[in-house]
Amino acid sequence: MPYFDAASTAPLHPVARQALTAALDEGWADPARLYRDGRRARMLLDAARETTAEVLGTRPDEISFTSSGTQAVQLGVLGTLSGNRRRGRHLVHSAVEHSSLLHAAEVHTTAGGTVTEVPVDRLGRVDAAEFAAALNPANGSGTGTALACLQSANHEVGTVQPVAEVAGLCAEAGVPLLVDAAQSAGRAAVPGGWSLLAASAHKWGGPAGVGVLAVRKGVRYTSPLPVDERERGRVPGFVNVPAIVAAAASLRAVRQQAEAEDARLRALVDLIRARVPQTVPDVEVVGDPVHRLPHIVTFSCLYVDGEVLLGELDRAGFAVSSGSSCTSSTLTPSHVLKAMGVLTEGNVRVSLPPGTEEAEVRRFLELLPGLVGAVRAPLGLPSPAQPLPPSSAAAAADTGPQAPVGPLVLDTLGRRCPIPVIELAKRIGEVPTGGTVAVLSDDEAARLDIPAWCEMRGEEYAGEAPAAAYGGDRGSAYLVVRRSG
Amino acid sequence: MPYFDAASTAPLHPVARQALTAALDEGWADPARLYRDGRRARMLLDAARETTAEVLGTRPDEISFTSSGTQAVQLGVLGTLSGNRRRGRHLVHSAVEHSSLLHAAEVHTTAGGTVTEVPVDRLGRVDAAEFAAALNPANGSGTGTALACLQSANHEVGTVQPVAEVAGLCAEAGVPLLVDAAQSAGRAAVPGGWSLLAASAHKWGGPAGVGVLAVRKGVRYTSPLPVDERERGRVPGFVNVPAIVAAAASLRAVRQQAEAEDARLRALVDLIRARVPQTVPDVEVVGDPVHRLPHIVTFSCLYVDGEVLLGELDRAGFAVSSGSSCTSSTLTPSHVLKAMGVLTEGNVRVSLPPGTEEAEVRRFLELLPGLVGAVRAPLGLPSPAQPLPPSSAAAAADTGPQAPVGPLVLDTLGRRCPIPVIELAKRIGEVPTGGTVAVLSDDEAARLDIPAWCEMRGEEYAGEAPAAAYGGDRGSAYLVVRRSG
Repeated sequence: MPYFDAASTAPLHPVARQALTAALDEGWADPARLYRDGRRARMLLDAARETTAEVLGTRPDEISFTSSGTQAVQLGVLGTLSGNRRRGRHLVHSAVEHSSLLHAAEVHTTAGGTVTEVPVDRLGRVDAAEFAAALNPANGSGTGTALACLQSANHEVGTVQPVAEVAGLCAEAGVPLLVDAAQSAGRAAVPGGWSLLAASAHKWGGPAGVGVLAVRKGVRYTSPLPVDERERGRVPGFVNVPAIVAAAASLRAVRQQAEAEDARLRALVDLIRARVPQTVPDVEVVGDPVHRLPHIVTFSCLYVDGEVLLGELDRAGFAVSSGSSCTSSTLTPSHVLKAMGVLTEGNVRVSLPPGTEEAEVRRFLELLPGLVGAVRAPLGLPSPAQPLPPSSAAAAADTGPQAPVGPLVLDTLGRRCPIPVIELAKRIGEVPTGGTVAVLSDDEAARLDIPAWCEMRGEEYAGEAPAAAYGGDRGSAYLVVRRSG
Repeated sequence: MPYFDAASTAPLHPVARQALTAALDEGWADPARLYRDGRRARMLLDAARETTAEVLGTRPDEISFTSSGTQAVQLGVLGTLSGNRRRGRHLVHSAVEHSSLLHAAEVHTTAGGTVTEVPVDRLGRVDAAEFAAALNPANGSGTGTALACLQSANHEVGTVQPVAEVAGLCAEAGVPLLVDAAQSAGRAAVPGGWSLLAASAHKWGGPAGVGVLAVRKGVRYTSPLPVDERERGRVPGFVNVPAIVAAAASLRAVRQQAEAEDARLRALVDLIRARVPQTVPDVEVVGDPVHRLPHIVTFSCLYVDGEVLLGELDRAGFAVSSGSSCTSSTLTPSHVLKAMGVLTEGNVRVSLPPGTEEAEVRRFLELLPGLVGAVRAPLGLPSPAQPLPPSSAAAAADTGPQAPVGPLVLDTLGRRCPIPVIELAKRIGEVPTGGTVAVLSDDEAARLDIPAWCEMRGEEYAGEAPAAAYGGDRGSAYLVVRRSG
């Protein structure tokens, strides 16, 4: 089964499996013990730390192994905020960080800290100058910035962030910078200049259960956890030596293969980026087409229920993920797509593991148009190639252009994505050119998808109003002005 | 190499290895994903949760898998204290809990909470009534007890705690009880009545990287960590399904073998408990001889440097651990031995993994007297079988019993365990019956080992005074009155 969800977790690298098997025999004992088995575990741990440091461009004594990338990010955020409290209690991060970082930021605000989210452009990238402008000088009143956070590259759309530039500006401001390198570690060199680096082994083909937190010498850090003598006082509890050994071995292996493999994957992603819009109508490919990770591409399909499409792809043998609201446990669309202001319905993220065959990608591209078409077919939507049928209302408006025409109100309250957009697409033809349709919706995705639909279809998005103004008892009215008949 | 340090970590159980290998193939994907590989990981995770719940006597939906036993204990302590803050900010635990729990208690006191440590008797056991007496009623002023903690059995000396009795008394007082079952889970049934249970997979032959935190329905719990949708909001980050599957498989396997295996190990420990005092002079076997875990026995050898003895045992092929101060990174003796008031020098903990052969134990017993003797030989100590030589000072005192005799002062300041006790043993012969020797020491172990030596050798321990009273510039004077010439 072609697995195209490497950004969630990569299949175990053969080198990792081999190293894990060997280390279960050689490195199972407590590395803190003085007897032979303990000393051997300690030597394996030391070697793994050196390998990891070398690949990530840091020093062995700056690395603590954590139990996950999430733990690395969250310790890095909370430990640095705590250690730099005298600077202030202000945290700066991009709007498209991984949820693990946003959850740590929530803990910070609950405890009375403040946060500035730096917005991204439509490609998902922060502007370095805008990021730097969010940094407050250190002061005694609490508003000083204690930490800035920026991912190396985005986990949903692949866009690479201007880390080197931001690191320079943070250094000028004297603000420590945490770089979440979970998506790029092993695949690409991490730009220098960071104060803290976080990464996750299972993203690079290592086993689950291993994260990396690197803290540069001189960075103030106060552990948010109980402290023991393990991992420089940053990660209490028994050290998982076999998994760490496997993680380090696979990090070295993927890094050695990265250049060749990434060129290959980059070409496959380019193929997807080019072909999907040619073969699937009403689709938006998102993320930066050039400054991106080699292996991730994300697109959204109008009128499509993401969960249904994922189900069709799964039946066809393809494992992908989605940022659509219908596929999340919270029923809200991906905060990344939201921050970018792009379409969220029918969202598909393809992320290719190393070794992906071109034939698998080609088969995906062959099958996709039919699967999307099958999901759309029962909706009875006008084809994008056909002009929308003029309605009687539109005809009436055409005969008396001066006569006031009330907006067409589409009540989709209580109905979830993609229904509001589907209703809009079905009924827009009834609206005269220059006329307005108000879509009433209490679904979070509508706020993103109706403006995105307007942009894709050349209609004018006229803003949001309380649904009550159009007879709704809750939610919002999304106003669309018809540009063309 | 005979591995006798199962209480630190058990070698991987063959069933765990088999399950891990299979689950790396079948359960590597993200169990939160909707595609086939994700669903399969989810099914394996659900099955592992059911197995674990069944063996531990709880419900699957009460179990969260953590990244270690340490994390399970620390989340349990801090989450329950936080969730029960309205009851008060008082924590009760025994003096012999695992260090992971003590570290969490430190975080609590640093944050302004209060702690009562319930002492243990010389066998290492708390008294249930004394434990219950430490519980304060809930009130608004902060002194109410929010959580009580008691281990199922001690990790250093094997003594089983009166958990069922304490659980009943905690329930009467309405105080939640956390039971740290790390040493007994898998080997023995955990008594019911607990509110929270913590355990660690690598102690029962599972892989490192898996702990269990069970929280009974209705127990108030507020996560001290950032919260996501994983593991009931208690453990953020990617779930390590393969390791959890292996942990559950080995838990079931060891539990099935436990009855037969534990009877066998219990007999081997009885053998060690009986033989060591017969063959090694000046040794104290500690812990409860009856109400104990089947596989742990601890003894201490007078005049012996624990690190040197561990080195000798290691060279002879035996892996054991020690609670002596010289073998700890902090250079303080084990808090467990300290709380029990027993000898800490020359301390050896033997903890037998399942499958230990009787021949290995017999070989250990054969070699031990020679190894201890070799460590002691260069010290030129009087043999315990021989009477101590009368000194000229003693003779002088005997001739004039009314004449005031100043105490003999032994300045061992700056010298570490076991030197102060060795000096005392060498020089006690110079002291007349009824005379006093003052041992000056700034070593933490002396405070435990000098009274323990007195008890073992039939001398009278007369208390501790500032070393300054005897001409020392720091540390304490430990006063010993000679009982017999």
